[in-house]
Amino acid sequence: MRQIRIATATQVSDRLLNLFFTMKHTYSLLLLTLIGFGSISQVTAQEHDISESLKKEAQALSQAALEENIAYEIVESLTTEVGPRLAGSKAEKRAREWGVAKLKELGFENVHVEPFEVPLWERGIERAEIVSPFPQQLTVTALGGSVATPEEGVVGELVRFGSIKELEKQAQGSLVGKIVFIDEIMTRTQDGSGYGVAVAKRRQTAYEAFKKGAIGALIRSVGTSSHRFAHTGQMKTITDITGEIDSVPTAALSGPDADQLTRALERTESIQIKLQLTPRFEPASTSGNVVGEIVGTESPEEIILIGGHLDSWDLGTGAIDDGAGIGITVAAARLIKDHYPNGLKRTIRVILWGSEEVGLVGAKAYAEAHENELQNFIVAAESDFGAGKIWKFNSFFAEEKLHYLSSFADTLKPLGIARGDNQASSGPDVGALKAKGVPIVSLQQNGWDYFDLHHTPNDTLDKIDPDDLAQNVAAYAAFIYLASEVDDDFRAKEKEIN
Amino acid sequence: MRQIRIATATQVSDRLLNLFFTMKHTYSLLLLTLIGFGSISQVTAQEHDISESLKKEAQALSQAALEENIAYEIVESLTTEVGPRLAGSKAEKRAREWGVAKLKELGFENVHVEPFEVPLWERGIERAEIVSPFPQQLTVTALGGSVATPEEGVVGELVRFGSIKELEKQAQGSLVGKIVFIDEIMTRTQDGSGYGVAVAKRRQTAYEAFKKGAIGALIRSVGTSSHRFAHTGQMKTITDITGEIDSVPTAALSGPDADQLTRALERTESIQIKLQLTPRFEPASTSGNVVGEIVGTESPEEIILIGGHLDSWDLGTGAIDDGAGIGITVAAARLIKDHYPNGLKRTIRVILWGSEEVGLVGAKAYAEAHENELQNFIVAAESDFGAGKIWKFNSFFAEEKLHYLSSFADTLKPLGIARGDNQASSGPDVGALKAKGVPIVSLQQNGWDYFDLHHTPNDTLDKIDPDDLAQNVAAYAAFIYLASEVDDDFRAKEKEIN
Repeated sequence: MRQIRIATATQVSDRLLNLFFTMKHTYSLLLLTLIGFGSISQVTAQEHDISESLKKEAQALSQAALEENIAYEIVESLTTEVGPRLAGSKAEKRAREWGVAKLKELGFENVHVEPFEVPLWERGIERAEIVSPFPQQLTVTALGGSVATPEEGVVGELVRFGSIKELEKQAQGSLVGKIVFIDEIMTRTQDGSGYGVAVAKRRQTAYEAFKKGAIGALIRSVGTSSHRFAHTGQMKTITDITGEIDSVPTAALSGPDADQLTRALERTESIQIKLQLTPRFEPASTSGNVVGEIVGTESPEEIILIGGHLDSWDLGTGAIDDGAGIGITVAAARLIKDHYPNGLKRTIRVILWGSEEVGLVGAKAYAEAHENELQNFIVAAESDFGAGKIWKFNSFFAEEKLHYLSSFADTLKPLGIARGDNQASSGPDVGALKAKGVPIVSLQQNGWDYFDLHHTPNDTLDKIDPDDLAQNVAAYAAFIYLASEVDDDFRAKEKEIN
Repeated sequence: MRQIRIATATQVSDRLLNLFFTMKHTYSLLLLTLIGFGSISQVTAQEHDISESLKKEAQALSQAALEENIAYEIVESLTTEVGPRLAGSKAEKRAREWGVAKLKELGFENVHVEPFEVPLWERGIERAEIVSPFPQQLTVTALGGSVATPEEGVVGELVRFGSIKELEKQAQGSLVGKIVFIDEIMTRTQDGSGYGVAVAKRRQTAYEAFKKGAIGALIRSVGTSSHRFAHTGQMKTITDITGEIDSVPTAALSGPDADQLTRALERTESIQIKLQLTPRFEPASTSGNVVGEIVGTESPEEIILIGGHLDSWDLGTGAIDDGAGIGITVAAARLIKDHYPNGLKRTIRVILWGSEEVGLVGAKAYAEAHENELQNFIVAAESDFGAGKIWKFNSFFAEEKLHYLSSFADTLKPLGIARGDNQASSGPDVGALKAKGVPIVSLQQNGWDYFDLHHTPNDTLDKIDPDDLAQNVAAYAAFIYLASEVDDDFRAKEKEIN
């Protein structure tokens, strides 16, 4: 896959060694013996390693990243000049225009948009209130893809369930005329593992409630905030739900409002709730993924793919979700370009994914369109978990390439990043690539506070710590550099031979 | 002012001593000499002190307060069963009904409502957006008393000023057709001293902007939250503004939105803003102060007056402002009733003040109605600064009665409360009493976080720490006890003689 490269004098010995090591193991041993290396054990130790000079170069890039503020400036630009950018909306189109201009301004090559189609779901009025016996407004927001109530709203008795599983157990038609309330609490974790569990209620409540005969539903927000923000988020993938009639109007309650309803239910036999949601659907229009590259000098067809998603929910300005991911990955690639104006050996491709929030629509379109090139994707990573410091480094590599993880971790250790495991759960937009065998790296951010802000109006620029953001850029820059310069890929050998 | 009292055996010696001391100083000295006390200096030291047994009794009450949870239960009941309770609204009426029922349930005597009239100002739609060049919604809320825009809103160019003073300096008619933006930042302090400064812009912007020819105004919220909540609050006293036409529609922006506008203004020559506010005024209707007492056994006409305000802003459920004050003062009086079923010597009067938020309407009505009884008010205190721990104890006593502050402070010290000064800024509802010479005590709460929540939707029960609330009750119970049982008042002597 790799041509012989032009190297600096200081790199020649490493390169020569690496060249031998890309040959079959037996040949390597033979050659090593011929050129006078000592023992087989020493060979084994060095064979699969990344050279010290590469690590040092990567760390120098990290250091440079820590001294600049460009990622933050990128997020500031996006969140201020575009603001919220809902999938399929005019604002998302403005975000693509912003993305193309920003990548060109920063020196990226081959900047273009790869279009795809996506329907639009837009929220309208969203109100919920206790009608009786304790009349008061509640803080709610419609879930993405929710159908509308009649314009005047619906009124029904509230029925609380501690979990979506409890609702599922109810008999069909047993909740006719009721408004369902799923009061399931999400667990706060550093790694975001509470999300997968909690999100089930967001995806299923509208459909389960419909089966039971309910006329509307409220869920405790999928989120961990103690503040009075309702967290929106998608139910089914938007391309699967437009126009369907097998669900009820469904909104998320802020945590304090869910607590309030639970307290109210402890004090009275029956609570009447009014729910008024007027979202609307629009037919599919063009969205797109924005792509830019730092083209490789030696193996330009080999791709290191990084990025974040460009769309955001409509409530906040999408700073942590996912302006941060855009800022981090664009700044990391730009830093490489700044230090290596001609590029690294491999191509760094940055993708600003479109329409992620409504069901990874851009990612699916991309994986399909590029299906025949995936063998050239050396590794892919997405930054989409906020702006917290990276603390762990996971991979999804072939077993026989796991030793690289150790070298990567050595390089990243000064940034406070520990070696993780090989079970990387990819960023959402590279999941389709991972499913097709593309090696994945996950630079895991500290997500302790992420779900306090996620999908709320409170996802704004001020929540980002510029120093934490720069640490992310430092890690990505080092990772990109090593992944480009190492004389190997991260797949199983047999796949390389094919 | 005080009759001879029936006392327990252990109290007799203290009482006897005190009895002498309530006599003219010269008589006291004579008597003391007769009964064999040693020196004049010893007399002076003891003359004005509160006895150790009273202090111990007060501290026992404090201890009991720390072991119960009733204040929190009261706030929970009010904020859940009534929720928001805007001055002059049906909800405030429900709050009065709640208050009467709650005070009766807890064993208060003479429970009644003292009515007064108040107009109603109710918010409607409130939206603001950047129309161009960076279209996006802003988080705003109308200020109490704001006039409405036309239903379709107003559109104008944004003009930013760093302070209300800067706006004041502009020439009359110099901002025709503009939308004013006052971007003055409030200082966070423990004692709330940043509020007085910050609130000027809330009170004046609508009127100043009108003079300059503007068509609308936005202010950075009077608040310290980094979260995306706009803080409402009253402009002029509601009784002074109904129907007036010398102001422009005015809303508060959340902190992050004010930051966003400032960033946007750094990037463009001109920002067009659309502001849509549809609040409405209703003529005056009946509001009221809810009053309950623990009647005194010996000097029932002498009043220790405590309380919080019953109304709240409409956005939150009024937990810290001022459900907490209601809970603290009601629980403290109830604790006294629990320990002394026949009452203390003096009467403890608890007032749940009505219509505080819109200009102290209940307090003014009360001070007027009770003008001729104020000489019987021994001391007044209001709890209206959230639910943080009390850390300081200020007074507004006659100079010659300041020595009591030392005894009060001794008693409160185990609760972590320090002696303050004699410049107590009263709780708002007792300000009118203070102005008429009623001695005041201010049990100052830690307000570091108070203005994060104040007047926002985020003022909800979960923000209250039950242990902190119990510490407040402990302090109030001790204070009430001492203020009732001390054989003196806190006014200058000449006033007593009159």
